[in-house]
Amino acid sequence: MNFSRTAVIFVIKKYLFGKPFYTEAVVKNIESASESLPYFETVHSTGLKFTIKIQKDDAVYGLGEAMRGINKKGYIYNSFCADDPNHTEATRSLYGAHNFIVVKTADKLFGAFFDTPAVVTFDVCYSKFDELIITSENENMTVYIIDGDTIYDIVKEFRSIIGRSYIPPMWAFGYTQSRWSYIDKDDVRRVAKGYRDFDIPLDAIYMDIDYMERYKDFTVNDKTFGKLPEFIEEMKEDGIRLVPIIDAGVKIEDGYDIYEEGVKNNYFCTDKDGKPFEACVWPGMTHFPDFLNPEVRTWFGSKYKILTDMGIEGFWNDMNEPAIFFSQNSVDATHEKIKRMASEKFTIDEFNELKYYIGSRQNCDEDYSAFYHNTPSGRFCHKDMHNLYGYNMTRSAGEALEAIVPDKRILLFSRASYIGMHRYGGIWTGDNHSWWSHILNEIKVLPSLNMCGFLYVGADIGGFGCDTTRDLLLRWLSLGIFTPLMRNHAAAGTREQECYLFERPEDFKNIIDLRYRLIPYIYSEYMKAAINNEMMFKPLAFEFPEDKVACCTEDQLLLGDELMIAPVYTQNALGRYVYLPEEMTAVRMRAGELFFTEMEKGHHFVEIAENEVVFFIRKGKAIPLCKRAKCVEELDLSTIELIGPGEEYLLYTDDGFSKDYENPANFRMLKK
Amino acid sequence: MNFSRTAVIFVIKKYLFGKPFYTEAVVKNIESASESLPYFETVHSTGLKFTIKIQKDDAVYGLGEAMRGINKKGYIYNSFCADDPNHTEATRSLYGAHNFIVVKTADKLFGAFFDTPAVVTFDVCYSKFDELIITSENENMTVYIIDGDTIYDIVKEFRSIIGRSYIPPMWAFGYTQSRWSYIDKDDVRRVAKGYRDFDIPLDAIYMDIDYMERYKDFTVNDKTFGKLPEFIEEMKEDGIRLVPIIDAGVKIEDGYDIYEEGVKNNYFCTDKDGKPFEACVWPGMTHFPDFLNPEVRTWFGSKYKILTDMGIEGFWNDMNEPAIFFSQNSVDATHEKIKRMASEKFTIDEFNELKYYIGSRQNCDEDYSAFYHNTPSGRFCHKDMHNLYGYNMTRSAGEALEAIVPDKRILLFSRASYIGMHRYGGIWTGDNHSWWSHILNEIKVLPSLNMCGFLYVGADIGGFGCDTTRDLLLRWLSLGIFTPLMRNHAAAGTREQECYLFERPEDFKNIIDLRYRLIPYIYSEYMKAAINNEMMFKPLAFEFPEDKVACCTEDQLLLGDELMIAPVYTQNALGRYVYLPEEMTAVRMRAGELFFTEMEKGHHFVEIAENEVVFFIRKGKAIPLCKRAKCVEELDLSTIELIGPGEEYLLYTDDGFSKDYENPANFRMLKK
Repeated sequence: MNFSRTAVIFVIKKYLFGKPFYTEAVVKNIESASESLPYFETVHSTGLKFTIKIQKDDAVYGLGEAMRGINKKGYIYNSFCADDPNHTEATRSLYGAHNFIVVKTADKLFGAFFDTPAVVTFDVCYSKFDELIITSENENMTVYIIDGDTIYDIVKEFRSIIGRSYIPPMWAFGYTQSRWSYIDKDDVRRVAKGYRDFDIPLDAIYMDIDYMERYKDFTVNDKTFGKLPEFIEEMKEDGIRLVPIIDAGVKIEDGYDIYEEGVKNNYFCTDKDGKPFEACVWPGMTHFPDFLNPEVRTWFGSKYKILTDMGIEGFWNDMNEPAIFFSQNSVDATHEKIKRMASEKFTIDEFNELKYYIGSRQNCDEDYSAFYHNTPSGRFCHKDMHNLYGYNMTRSAGEALEAIVPDKRILLFSRASYIGMHRYGGIWTGDNHSWWSHILNEIKVLPSLNMCGFLYVGADIGGFGCDTTRDLLLRWLSLGIFTPLMRNHAAAGTREQECYLFERPEDFKNIIDLRYRLIPYIYSEYMKAAINNEMMFKPLAFEFPEDKVACCTEDQLLLGDELMIAPVYTQNALGRYVYLPEEMTAVRMRAGELFFTEMEKGHHFVEIAENEVVFFIRKGKAIPLCKRAKCVEELDLSTIELIGPGEEYLLYTDDGFSKDYENPANFRMLKK
Repeated sequence: MNFSRTAVIFVIKKYLFGKPFYTEAVVKNIESASESLPYFETVHSTGLKFTIKIQKDDAVYGLGEAMRGINKKGYIYNSFCADDPNHTEATRSLYGAHNFIVVKTADKLFGAFFDTPAVVTFDVCYSKFDELIITSENENMTVYIIDGDTIYDIVKEFRSIIGRSYIPPMWAFGYTQSRWSYIDKDDVRRVAKGYRDFDIPLDAIYMDIDYMERYKDFTVNDKTFGKLPEFIEEMKEDGIRLVPIIDAGVKIEDGYDIYEEGVKNNYFCTDKDGKPFEACVWPGMTHFPDFLNPEVRTWFGSKYKILTDMGIEGFWNDMNEPAIFFSQNSVDATHEKIKRMASEKFTIDEFNELKYYIGSRQNCDEDYSAFYHNTPSGRFCHKDMHNLYGYNMTRSAGEALEAIVPDKRILLFSRASYIGMHRYGGIWTGDNHSWWSHILNEIKVLPSLNMCGFLYVGADIGGFGCDTTRDLLLRWLSLGIFTPLMRNHAAAGTREQECYLFERPEDFKNIIDLRYRLIPYIYSEYMKAAINNEMMFKPLAFEFPEDKVACCTEDQLLLGDELMIAPVYTQNALGRYVYLPEEMTAVRMRAGELFFTEMEKGHHFVEIAENEVVFFIRKGKAIPLCKRAKCVEELDLSTIELIGPGEEYLLYTDDGFSKDYENPANFRMLKK
């Protein structure tokens, strides 16, 4: 018996422009087409430009991690992995570069993947209200065109050529807590105790940059996290795993083995003269490992063993766009400026010059143009390879962990990404804020990321930057209980946002308890989506393309084949409007109890108190629900019951660790 | 016959803490109460703290210009006039300080005005989920408590003690266009021609800072705007007025008469040693006129005559928080730093020190603490008087213009404000962005400002910062046609957003034409609100306090007694949900034609295309509509017809210039 679904086969065509770098995003061998690129008007000169007419009711989907709509019409996006914490409506680049789109017009439906490590701009009816204009200054690119009868078909086919999405261990579907930073073991113990005392489930606590010795990768601060293996064990006995951060930059420090090995073996990115490029990040001046070099990936990846040997089972790769606070070049140039200015009259003009110069040093173009990679295909300026950096850092970890712990899945996710990285890890959507609009943005980004292969995803619940509020956190958790990565995380200097610190912690407990009751379902749907190259989160527009209201509903999502979610994302809300494209069963969690209501197709105003969760089971469908537990490993699947109007559900189960995903024994048809 | 409504009389009580500065926000003489402050628990020691319990279904309204909800529950606000263009959900201070709130609990309903020039913090169920906590570090404050049976009563009574709101000339209800900056006369002519060529109505074009000679107040750049009186006349012949900006800071420049007069007469704010304080703004180093000194107000105000003599009939006061790019003190301190750093080793630490220091100079606390005002009650540090600065700049202009052109209303609005300034001018809501969320924020801020006396208000339509889009501008205009100040404005470096530049300018024309058809109504409702101390824009919660859905509906507003508006504020929307708390008549403008639909009380999904406008006329009400014209003065009121289910409407008309507002002849009952 094989419950995995048959792949739909459609024609995928590949078109080469210039001499494209092989990004390894696509892993399936596809012959390049001899005819010219269909659908688009193409201009290929010093750069590339593809245009296509888009009419009023047409849509452009995709682009993964991006602001604004599920339908990308109405704005302009730059694919450029950017460490920019200001995720506003004007933000054109986030941490990922995900150049896959689906274009739907009155007479055309196709997917297109613009595969290049360089910047690509997607002007989606922004400059001209009826044109999609895709441009790249770099003239080298591979374009894949995917035809299909439905958007699902196109996505599935695209996913089949980029390879199976990363699968985390089952415990990584638990609720997890983070903060920049829990400064020592007692701080971590305090958090664990806070959750356990109020009986709020918890599966992991993250260790942000301060666990390291002066921010050096693969070191542990002995004063604050000494005897880490024992501490890891102590926490694990309580059902809590520790997940450390790994940053991209390697501190320049004599005697630090990783720095010295890197220098000795030429493992770091170099400047134009071939010397290791120096840039300041958290550790101070660092070098960047040249992850585009396979030998470097193997070397850096092997270092994760230092931590897995201590008992660590999950990692989080950060600062890998790479983020640059400023380079040594900028420091030197500033020094020259101030030497001149100190000896001259220091006026408004000099002040302004200095202010502008220093203020523009972070993640600046000059720095990204000033260092180089040694790849198997030659030496390239970073600028032209930029979008592959975070991808290959996580690939380095993913491939190494495969070798280090071949029999066990390890949690791994990254900030920067490119399509291809989805095979090695998940992503979290970076440094968001404690803003209501960022709940809505998470809703919109989930299906877009799924289209591009990223399934293990989630936002920092409660918001990373700015100060959270009790109601914001409750509402965000009510979305977060449905996302594979469910992490509460906050920046240094912001209000503490561990759930047990707020009034009425039982409100938080009830919501997070529901997550644990849903894990058999969420895990099953995740595994089916990964195994079958399908989307876990789906826009209503994809499922009900003939329903014009559904096509414009971007604040609700389908989850798997059974659920629809419609989270509240506004302050002081009595509830929200929900559109039902077909009749459904509303499930309301109130004070830990579930209540069911049959609802008709159409528009509804649904009251949802901030300590309640409401979700919808689709017509004829049922989902499994088990008893809650304090952590994933304690979930008792024998307590599963099916809820909803349907009679059966295809459950996926396994031990949560091993990699025999497609074993038919993992699939079990539950019946009422 | 007197159509103005009788004022409702309720008890207002005044409570003094410490030795409060008389802000002149309240103009009615009220005896101070002998008993202690009701409703709040008060702590009066080195500062002031007032607390009151707030339960789940309670509400706190008011605070004028602020982010987030109409109901302020769920966040924390600082009353501190701030030049901060990042209007995000985390923003705690905008340009105005409007310390009036209405508290509504299960058993209490009252208004409270915390009258002090110093910073006040309103923690509205943010730190504690059931407490409103109001704090000030300054121990001097006058608190007014206003009781009433309804929120409308309380607002009306409050408005009666702060004095009648500013009334602009009628032409200022026309559509107006601005940009930072139209650089010369030909640039302005091009804009005028653009609108006239497409027959899109237009009443004014704004002159941003570049019309001045090196940004010197009350000067005109002869090269770009020479022979200004003739140009003003030329534009006026086309029905277009020019509205110049006036900034707070006076350029330090030998030979510049205003600078020299100010220095000679000690009219500028001084540093601790009594020397004029120096701060850099657009003109370079400037001094700030000491607007808290009545003699300075008279002097500075008299300068507006330079421009009214040229034919100018409207002004816009800016940068009057006051905004400070950096002070001479900061320049000097930076110079000291770089002299030291140039001679030492310049490392990461020095770079960071310099980066942080220079980056923190704009509008910094040190500068606001470093200059002083000479007021009739003595010398005060600016920090403690901060919130009165913009207010008194606009008062300076308003009082002077009253003397300069006693028989004619002059357009006047300001960026910074405090309650009291509403008597002298309007406000625009500052440097917003081309964000969809800023359309919604404008909806929420309109009634909050009305509560505080600010009636002539509006946001920069299309967004000031960032790049606008065609659909955003169309949707924003569809709200803007209902706001008294209707201005399209954009920052330097952003996409041009004059309506005629986009595809299908007829879509823009149709929406702006509707504005002109509505002007008899909007002007009447404005005048009634001003004369009767009422709100022009009202939250549904105020009108339908027993309707729990209405109480939570914050994206719709009542306009006057007849209309409800429900603008679309999301991208790619098919329409939006609208809640009707009672049956209404929907009016849809499509391609210039109006279509009417009777709608039942309840929830509706209303389709609204981006080139359509839908608004709602209330049960039994009618509104006047006239024929469109290219500018306000060409409106022909003989073309007025009444639309809607009602039979009559009380129209206010006058010549649009004179000040005989309450003349009964201005009110006319129209009947079908």
